[in-house]
Amino acid sequence: MFQSFEVTARPEQGPPRLAALRAELQAAGLDGFLVPRADAHQGEYVAPRDDRLAWLTGFTGSAGFCAALRDVAGVFIDGRYRTQVKAQVADVFTPVPWPEVSLADWLKDQLPEGGVVGFDPMLHTPAQMDLLFDALAGSGIEMRRVSNMVDRIWEDQPDASMGKVAAHPERFAGESHEAKRWRLAADLRAAGQKAALITLPDSHNWLLNIRGQDIPRNPVAHGFAVLHDDARVDLFVGAEKLVNVEDHLGPEVVQRDPEGLPDYLRALEGPVRLDRQSAPLLFADLLGDRAQAGEDPCALPKACKNDAEIAGAAEAHLRDGAAMVELLAWLDAQAPGTITETKVVQQLEALRRRDPALRDISFETISGTGPNGAIIHYRVNEETDTVLQEGHLLVLDSGGQYLDGTTDITRTIAIGSPDPEARAAFTRVLSGMIAMSRLRWPRGLAGRDIEMLGRLPLWMAGQDFDHGLGHGVGAYLSVHEGPQRLSRMSHVPLEPGMILSNEPGYYREGAFGIRIENLLVVQEAPALPGGDAHRKMLDWRTLTLVPIDRRLIDVAALSPEARHWLNAYHRDVAEKIGPRVSPVTKLWLDAATAPL
Amino acid sequence: MFQSFEVTARPEQGPPRLAALRAELQAAGLDGFLVPRADAHQGEYVAPRDDRLAWLTGFTGSAGFCAALRDVAGVFIDGRYRTQVKAQVADVFTPVPWPEVSLADWLKDQLPEGGVVGFDPMLHTPAQMDLLFDALAGSGIEMRRVSNMVDRIWEDQPDASMGKVAAHPERFAGESHEAKRWRLAADLRAAGQKAALITLPDSHNWLLNIRGQDIPRNPVAHGFAVLHDDARVDLFVGAEKLVNVEDHLGPEVVQRDPEGLPDYLRALEGPVRLDRQSAPLLFADLLGDRAQAGEDPCALPKACKNDAEIAGAAEAHLRDGAAMVELLAWLDAQAPGTITETKVVQQLEALRRRDPALRDISFETISGTGPNGAIIHYRVNEETDTVLQEGHLLVLDSGGQYLDGTTDITRTIAIGSPDPEARAAFTRVLSGMIAMSRLRWPRGLAGRDIEMLGRLPLWMAGQDFDHGLGHGVGAYLSVHEGPQRLSRMSHVPLEPGMILSNEPGYYREGAFGIRIENLLVVQEAPALPGGDAHRKMLDWRTLTLVPIDRRLIDVAALSPEARHWLNAYHRDVAEKIGPRVSPVTKLWLDAATAPL
Repeated sequence: MFQSFEVTARPEQGPPRLAALRAELQAAGLDGFLVPRADAHQGEYVAPRDDRLAWLTGFTGSAGFCAALRDVAGVFIDGRYRTQVKAQVADVFTPVPWPEVSLADWLKDQLPEGGVVGFDPMLHTPAQMDLLFDALAGSGIEMRRVSNMVDRIWEDQPDASMGKVAAHPERFAGESHEAKRWRLAADLRAAGQKAALITLPDSHNWLLNIRGQDIPRNPVAHGFAVLHDDARVDLFVGAEKLVNVEDHLGPEVVQRDPEGLPDYLRALEGPVRLDRQSAPLLFADLLGDRAQAGEDPCALPKACKNDAEIAGAAEAHLRDGAAMVELLAWLDAQAPGTITETKVVQQLEALRRRDPALRDISFETISGTGPNGAIIHYRVNEETDTVLQEGHLLVLDSGGQYLDGTTDITRTIAIGSPDPEARAAFTRVLSGMIAMSRLRWPRGLAGRDIEMLGRLPLWMAGQDFDHGLGHGVGAYLSVHEGPQRLSRMSHVPLEPGMILSNEPGYYREGAFGIRIENLLVVQEAPALPGGDAHRKMLDWRTLTLVPIDRRLIDVAALSPEARHWLNAYHRDVAEKIGPRVSPVTKLWLDAATAPL
Repeated sequence: MFQSFEVTARPEQGPPRLAALRAELQAAGLDGFLVPRADAHQGEYVAPRDDRLAWLTGFTGSAGFCAALRDVAGVFIDGRYRTQVKAQVADVFTPVPWPEVSLADWLKDQLPEGGVVGFDPMLHTPAQMDLLFDALAGSGIEMRRVSNMVDRIWEDQPDASMGKVAAHPERFAGESHEAKRWRLAADLRAAGQKAALITLPDSHNWLLNIRGQDIPRNPVAHGFAVLHDDARVDLFVGAEKLVNVEDHLGPEVVQRDPEGLPDYLRALEGPVRLDRQSAPLLFADLLGDRAQAGEDPCALPKACKNDAEIAGAAEAHLRDGAAMVELLAWLDAQAPGTITETKVVQQLEALRRRDPALRDISFETISGTGPNGAIIHYRVNEETDTVLQEGHLLVLDSGGQYLDGTTDITRTIAIGSPDPEARAAFTRVLSGMIAMSRLRWPRGLAGRDIEMLGRLPLWMAGQDFDHGLGHGVGAYLSVHEGPQRLSRMSHVPLEPGMILSNEPGYYREGAFGIRIENLLVVQEAPALPGGDAHRKMLDWRTLTLVPIDRRLIDVAALSPEARHWLNAYHRDVAEKIGPRVSPVTKLWLDAATAPL
């Protein structure tokens, strides 16, 4: 199994570790130290070695940080984790609602003028620290760059992962790394930049057509890269990780020792593009005036998938869809009251693992029934595991990392007979999901410009949900990939080839949760008779092919267009997934996809 | 009549004026001079004295500028005016497509290093010039502040208007100017600012509850104001304009001579808030380091109308609606082929003028039939005036400035039997207009977040239109008022009391145009049973009450919700406008508002 249901938080370990950290603070003449969740790559998952926040505090959420001072240790967590943090940390830690309370304001309240707070400049970005420095200006509180204080006291800190790197075949990548490097180098030359520093693993893994195994759920090799304006790349990854890919990388990609990166940056000729949103502050310091702020040069090219990547994603979705359909058929055969949330996760993972191309799940499966379904980032463990009961809903959000693509799908399933209110809300969520799937829009718009469409049926009923409508998805890379998003936060125009999730939901605290998620790819829309000939328009191709639970649909509340779309979608699911499932499941599928 | 149909462009006057300007340039040692359309207040309408661009070039559009160099004079105009400019300017002027060609790039092409271009720092904002300075950096071209070169050669330049200022009664304003001043002064104190410079006439007119008559269409008094953090105001308006309002203004508002403003600003204690988007660069120069960038303090409070202002707007819309209904009934009685576009404008203005509270029209009425309807900013004149023909549409976009409110309405009317394609497009435009009118949305969203809803039916048919969905509207003030907009450009959250237009359209070049426009006011939405109790939501109240042409609606293509909305709207129109029109018109109205 990839996923475990162990209760990992051990609050009792926090106090002695915090005491040890405070002794170090005292010895170093510091009044505090910042412990972020992030590693030097600012990703969503971190290696065990980098899981300093969880090690120190017990808190295992995917975002947050601790500001450990001499007398008080604030654990800053957002709204998703208010309940979880209380269960996971000992009372020597003080949960702080964030971003409602800013770190700067909190420090100003807690520290006198002259207070000195240390931080590790590898773990914070220039953009992040600029905001903090500005907010602390005039307060008399100093933020001081120091070596990592947690690493000093963490005696059994795991070593950095040395997972072997593999070439990502060109039949999946669709473009050689040589072609990619030359394409991006031309951009650098046009911008008058000599080089670009690439610190996001999925960026240099994409650029060089390699994949790794340094962190769970994301098939990336950790490391840093420098792309030069003549298309050469210096790759700062331990040589022992690259033994199988030397031929693949070729002479224009030079392996270098990660420890040598600081000296290398001190000597590198500028201007050097550096992404202030994601690079470590340490690197910006080392480059000084030679650093030129600019977006990671891989971000947009990586987001716009080529034909091979889209074909791979579609293939992966057929196999992933078959596993999901087997799961749904199996689930329908279980009587209410007989299985639990973790059983569903295990069964789904077992079905996915039949596929030899599966390398990992793409994130911890969310399997939440009844009130657990209303916890947006619910992660089931041994203590919370709940039996699926008559009349409840199950929110099942999961995905796989396949060699040819990354999947992410949510279905909400009725256990027995659903409650009418849940059915009405489900129909609204579905109407929003379908309206977005059917959309055609003029090229040039960003997620912010169209996101409302997935919320509209809920709004009209006085309802809404508190997450974005969708996120970008990588090609056998991160399941959360920027810069494209279907979100109010996203001003990046949507371009053909971008893969995004479309996942409206509805959550009634203490009662039920609903979410329906398909992955879509942006494409050029075909011209319509009578349409404006001069307008370039875009629309979606749906990748995910798994039935929507018909028992949860109030057909009378669907528009004729939505009903037509759903029937056509189900026909497509039956045609494409039917031949891939067992005969018994095929019978279930035919019923599940019958026209409404 | 307020509106004239005179052809005002006289291309033959341009060449001698340009020659005179060039002689001045030579004498002043300049290689060029910028002539913007804007005056010192950056408004949409300018006084005759400030209409330098039209005087010099003949071009009468509402946006654009001329860069007059020694050998070439570029007239920079946006897409709306490509055709118009050719008819209005002599061939000594070169139309430049803008913003496709930037002023900086054009200057770099036309001038050698060392070139010096003059500009009048009263007519350009700091934000505008910062962009230009940045874009010219390193080019060797110098932008030099000079006194206005056009004023030097314009011998019969009109005097500044000395229109008398009147108090705007508190029963319309809803809040005394004392209360407004204290409210805004508290904001200044909270921001640590000693004063704010207010350069937009509608801002200080709103603040002091005064109205003026210095420019057409906008009932404002020109001038500048400084609001101090103790709620005192120094008002830089000629004393002869203020004779009737001394008691109204009281001792805390001190009249000062406009000529004294520069010396006053040199001596004013800072920090002083200055809006870099709208204030003259000259004032930013005079304040130097004492200027602190910030939004005009009146902008947002002015945008959020109070109950009295909303009640006034509603009242004005009842009377304006009655005039429009009389017009529509009259129009239907005219046989196709018998009247022209200008006749419709005259008839409508005559009907509006029956109301003694009418002070002006709120902009030049757009009356465009057939292909003229497809010209978004069409302004009919003697030469373009066209007969309303069988099978054509008429786009009629107009409004009034009443003492109690400002109106702006567009209706598209079938002349005889409409073409099926136009009918299909009209139904899509109407569907978008209705969907926006029915919308309920969570508080905190901006125009950008919801604008798409008004376009959606067109998008789904491969169509769209090239203007925003709506603009803010003032309370007996500017018909185009910021910062609220229903536009992709607007990130300002919509707040209760804001009045906006909702005006989707569709334009087929050379064939027909369609636009339907109502004014709406943002309000807190009532709670719905089953809705999320903790969510604050907003919706619209529709102010405009005039029937939509039923002959242009393909009822089968309307959703049941849209049809229900339209029938309810028409019932409302019949009830509220019916008692205000003549008996004959009442018969017409009953038929025009019958249920669909």
